[in-house]
Amino acid sequence: MKRFLVYAMLLAGGLLGACQGGGEAPVASEELAPGVIKLSAGSIDPFTPYAVLGGQPLTEAMERLPEAELPFDIDDILIEVNGRGCQVTVPLADGEQLYGFGMQYGTFGHRGTRKRPVVNDNPLNDLGYSHAPQPFYVSSKGYGILVNTARYTTFLCGSNTKISQNARATEGNREKIADDPSQLYDNRAGGNQVFIDIPGAKGVEVFVITGPEVAGVVKRYNLLSGGGCLPPLWGLGFKYRVKGDATRDSVYRFARYFRDNRIPCDVLGLEPGWQTATYSCSYVWSDERFPGHRAMLDSLRREGYKINLWEHAYVHPSSPIRQEMEPYAGDFLVWNGLVPDFLLPEARRVFGDYHQGLIDEGISGFKLDECDNSNIAFGSATWCFPDLAKFPSGIDGEQMHQLFGSLYVNTVDDLYRRMNLRAYQDYRSSGLFMSARSAVLYSDTYDHRQYIQALCNSAFGGLLWCPEVREARSAADFFHRLHTVLLSPQAMVNAWYLQYAPWLQFDRGKNERGEFLPEAEEYESYARKLIDLRMQLLPYLYYAFYVYRTEGLPPFRPLLMDYPADERLRDLSDQYLIGDGLMAAPLYGDGDTRRVYFPEGVWYDFNTNERYEGGREYEITVRFDQLPLFVRQGTLLPLAEPVQYVDAETVFRLHCRAYGTDEASCRLFEDDGTTYDFEQGKFNIVTLRASGGQVSLERTGGYDGRRYEVTGCEFID
Amino acid sequence: MKRFLVYAMLLAGGLLGACQGGGEAPVASEELAPGVIKLSAGSIDPFTPYAVLGGQPLTEAMERLPEAELPFDIDDILIEVNGRGCQVTVPLADGEQLYGFGMQYGTFGHRGTRKRPVVNDNPLNDLGYSHAPQPFYVSSKGYGILVNTARYTTFLCGSNTKISQNARATEGNREKIADDPSQLYDNRAGGNQVFIDIPGAKGVEVFVITGPEVAGVVKRYNLLSGGGCLPPLWGLGFKYRVKGDATRDSVYRFARYFRDNRIPCDVLGLEPGWQTATYSCSYVWSDERFPGHRAMLDSLRREGYKINLWEHAYVHPSSPIRQEMEPYAGDFLVWNGLVPDFLLPEARRVFGDYHQGLIDEGISGFKLDECDNSNIAFGSATWCFPDLAKFPSGIDGEQMHQLFGSLYVNTVDDLYRRMNLRAYQDYRSSGLFMSARSAVLYSDTYDHRQYIQALCNSAFGGLLWCPEVREARSAADFFHRLHTVLLSPQAMVNAWYLQYAPWLQFDRGKNERGEFLPEAEEYESYARKLIDLRMQLLPYLYYAFYVYRTEGLPPFRPLLMDYPADERLRDLSDQYLIGDGLMAAPLYGDGDTRRVYFPEGVWYDFNTNERYEGGREYEITVRFDQLPLFVRQGTLLPLAEPVQYVDAETVFRLHCRAYGTDEASCRLFEDDGTTYDFEQGKFNIVTLRASGGQVSLERTGGYDGRRYEVTGCEFID
Repeated sequence: MKRFLVYAMLLAGGLLGACQGGGEAPVASEELAPGVIKLSAGSIDPFTPYAVLGGQPLTEAMERLPEAELPFDIDDILIEVNGRGCQVTVPLADGEQLYGFGMQYGTFGHRGTRKRPVVNDNPLNDLGYSHAPQPFYVSSKGYGILVNTARYTTFLCGSNTKISQNARATEGNREKIADDPSQLYDNRAGGNQVFIDIPGAKGVEVFVITGPEVAGVVKRYNLLSGGGCLPPLWGLGFKYRVKGDATRDSVYRFARYFRDNRIPCDVLGLEPGWQTATYSCSYVWSDERFPGHRAMLDSLRREGYKINLWEHAYVHPSSPIRQEMEPYAGDFLVWNGLVPDFLLPEARRVFGDYHQGLIDEGISGFKLDECDNSNIAFGSATWCFPDLAKFPSGIDGEQMHQLFGSLYVNTVDDLYRRMNLRAYQDYRSSGLFMSARSAVLYSDTYDHRQYIQALCNSAFGGLLWCPEVREARSAADFFHRLHTVLLSPQAMVNAWYLQYAPWLQFDRGKNERGEFLPEAEEYESYARKLIDLRMQLLPYLYYAFYVYRTEGLPPFRPLLMDYPADERLRDLSDQYLIGDGLMAAPLYGDGDTRRVYFPEGVWYDFNTNERYEGGREYEITVRFDQLPLFVRQGTLLPLAEPVQYVDAETVFRLHCRAYGTDEASCRLFEDDGTTYDFEQGKFNIVTLRASGGQVSLERTGGYDGRRYEVTGCEFID
Repeated sequence: MKRFLVYAMLLAGGLLGACQGGGEAPVASEELAPGVIKLSAGSIDPFTPYAVLGGQPLTEAMERLPEAELPFDIDDILIEVNGRGCQVTVPLADGEQLYGFGMQYGTFGHRGTRKRPVVNDNPLNDLGYSHAPQPFYVSSKGYGILVNTARYTTFLCGSNTKISQNARATEGNREKIADDPSQLYDNRAGGNQVFIDIPGAKGVEVFVITGPEVAGVVKRYNLLSGGGCLPPLWGLGFKYRVKGDATRDSVYRFARYFRDNRIPCDVLGLEPGWQTATYSCSYVWSDERFPGHRAMLDSLRREGYKINLWEHAYVHPSSPIRQEMEPYAGDFLVWNGLVPDFLLPEARRVFGDYHQGLIDEGISGFKLDECDNSNIAFGSATWCFPDLAKFPSGIDGEQMHQLFGSLYVNTVDDLYRRMNLRAYQDYRSSGLFMSARSAVLYSDTYDHRQYIQALCNSAFGGLLWCPEVREARSAADFFHRLHTVLLSPQAMVNAWYLQYAPWLQFDRGKNERGEFLPEAEEYESYARKLIDLRMQLLPYLYYAFYVYRTEGLPPFRPLLMDYPADERLRDLSDQYLIGDGLMAAPLYGDGDTRRVYFPEGVWYDFNTNERYEGGREYEITVRFDQLPLFVRQGTLLPLAEPVQYVDAETVFRLHCRAYGTDEASCRLFEDDGTTYDFEQGKFNIVTLRASGGQVSLERTGGYDGRRYEVTGCEFID
């Protein structure tokens, strides 16, 4: 590999070298940030994801990462610019596997497939379509390839063979006569190159992100994006979204329900019905369904609730901002709504000024729905603006689709930032360079196994993913889904079409009619216990996010990131790590057991303290009222006494567990929980040390408050 | 509408006028052929379908069609050429419906949908993907819009609303709170324009094809393409494709089976196993499975069989033409096979010269498989060359996909034309300007209702479609499928994975094991009777194809083409007309009845002679051994005594039926049945006249042979 000795100025974009890239255009290379080389050729589009969304790279943290070599010469990456657009060719070694492409459901290792990471609300047949697509893959060889384009891009991940690579051309299928289409169309081609197709582009930038290892690439990518996000502390609690047609009184009913039954809840989410018009949106409170909404918001706030409002970006004819938005909107309507051109400061201002009013009334965040696209999965579903749409900024619909969700989230997130408040929003579309934004993806697609895999896949690209739970086909299905949700970045029940909490009745029709399960009381106690468990993990999770913020390591991630040498983990996408000491292995069948693979070392069952040897699979049983959690030997796990909600005064009383060790320590992050003051040093690092049967607490840092007390430690063999 | 007074020279392409098209590029207009106006703007791609595939328009027949007006001013068609590519906007009136886009399965009237007519072997979610996509729609207002491009093009068929058309912007969905995604995503937009997106194009040609009425547009389009095809007379008989791994002896077994059991059969089709290597193809007879294949071919020919060979275009490393093809192939392999660049005369010569040898041994035609694409329906199915592939002619993979099937068919068809022989081939991909080519589309996709709809849809674009029948889930399912197949352009049983004829056992596993149905003998007699019925219709069908050839009227077509004023026919796609006097209404459920709508006039049941009043629906019963056929009042229907196969000596003995009239006539086409000599006048038009209880036969023309005798007439009230 060619080494780059000088770290180029980030914004100057000076060329460090120029080499021929094998195609028509001269390829320039530059070290964009430590360990990130930018190759560019041709005339670059003005609206690249990095130009539009890129934040401030955390270059110091990047410099602290070990240097890594590419497994090939960087000159072997070929870029061609021609009449079709740009094509990029990247070497691929035998046995190499590729991960990423954003929040993908269908595959984990993508080698042998064609991936088209294009924004869409339906992950159609594993084509690469996703709410959060990324033209970015991470190789098992410890490097990443990111195509910095908002154009629809196709990756042939070793799925096709070029004639010049015709090593196997003398082989062939001479004997076998297939008698089934599935036999015929098995992909029998192989290839030792990745081919990337960017039609219509007159030039392209390729970011080559070095490791070492997969985890190093992911950290570098997140740090390049400005680091991971740090949600408000309350954002890690429990969120419940009420039914779409809820009224003030039904919201009050839910608010009382949680407190009366001592089920923790930090956030209530309101769905479309809060507005006078939806699909498209007026953003105006409905006096009919929510008379005196300000009083309601005050009352809920006093009970410890944060309120989140559903909306989408399409501005209804009756909206107060309709007229002002007209000059800054795209030329196509969505549900008769204007589509703001969020690339324009004017559109952000009009949208933001109005939303500031909602926030000032006490709204803690928004659920930003349908900022993805539905044009490409079904011929009859065409609710979004088309690819040929034009926006006043000059971008077309295609490229706007790839950026729209991110621009929308940033517009709203920036309002909170200006108020020095951290939000934790729900959104349905994301893409590149969004790790620093405090928002979690969701989706209506409802396959539990795919949810778990999406959680793993999201980790490669700085995305946070919240699986959903609403209705279920059985108690097992319900509780298994709830387990996964509670072990995700956001513990949310998105019950937007259920009248009552789903643990009382998980059949949708019966729920609507108020016909509760015979086991409703028992199941409610399970739900309480499970949500309590989530609340017990809050301090642990908060620190994992601090590591994400500062080092770029995803708080939720597939096992291969921590154990790159373990070949068995290369395809494992139904288990994941949480922070440094925990592993989740959700059940997703109807039974009460599953096979769980343990990587090297020794592991403990969080529920039973049973001990498992690494490098093996075990059949594990998990009850409905237990979380499918396992603890790494040597971990000091701080568990908080559950609180009903988090507020400024909350102090967590911690009881620790030390697993398989007499001496262990862990760290916690302590701050006000809600502002960005920690960026100015107003935070503490709290260290807990267990030793000789005792546990001690130390803190260093510039935050005056106290969030943690330690009450004791249990030592588990 | 602006009228064009001068008929421009076809090849000169002189500009008759130039008008501003509303976009950046000046739009030139020209009358390409009578009633066909070509608009062009920008720099036109070298490989347009018309440039590459266009034949000799039948301008005299076009001139005989009545003149028609467009329902809008042609200047209202806007063409914009910009950095994205080209966009075309076409007006759309209230109540207007759009048809076509090639051989589509999913919808009939496309208004309100987004259609992307791109070649693909899977009609994924009604996106417009198809074996035979066409960027061409026909409006119920009696005009057609054809975008002469091989680029992937998207049509928004009144599915999206532009801000400037914001007539309904003050409406909105203020009250209803949806509680289901399907409610949310119903397409509630409307639009009075069609938006066409051709990304990457630097210019575009739009053909505006006038009617009058839908039928006039379709005729004009077919005549522009050189007219319809006239298959060889034997091609209208029965074809049976044997199992993929068949050997010489199993082929003999089938040949004897049909003759011994007096089941008509004209063509036996061999599947991959005839070759030494398939997937990709060697094109070399397997001596192992077919020792002495020349003797077998001679023997089968003596028994009256034509032989058709399966293949695809990808040249296996062991093929004798591999080395010679290398310089004329694309840069990607398919199943290790070379992809010939059929745009190059050299590739056509290498491929053609070799195939000439196969033809000379006695092959009557080929089944040209997998000339479509599978890259876009499944992320893991990537067997075809990618869109970014390059071919020596300069075309890219994307545009080659849209042309490949047609170029391939034409390469083989041209061999037969040079021998003055008509072929009737099977192929799996087609597109624009193919009506004059004697080939029939097929597909593995296996939804019977969609098959019938595809038969209707194909008629808008000069395509012939053969539904398939192989295995079935029940006797009803089997016979209903067989009915449709026998009432299609090609009566073929494509049993490529069945060991025995499917009427003996339609369960695939049992068929493989030779476990016949208890009713096998009875069902065989039904099959014999049904195939006999097809053979009875041969003279009638042959004349319908002659009309297709000379006037462009599709022999199989949806009812709305003949009854444009009947509003109820605008969505009717499960019945179709055959020639001028017959209507088919196949059953596709499990029962023995269906609702059938009869257009104006009086109709008769082909099986029972029952009389139906037009403008109404009836519940119709069809037995397994009957065809779901209905006859228009006034029709003189000539029915031939069934022959076992058609050869040079075949004379059809005709018994006629006159429906609901004492005086009727019909016409028949008479020629040698196999050559293009009819183009030099060597054919007769035979007129049958029924009157006063008698029937007479008259012929005029330049053909010396005699194909038809009339034996009598039945008069049906």
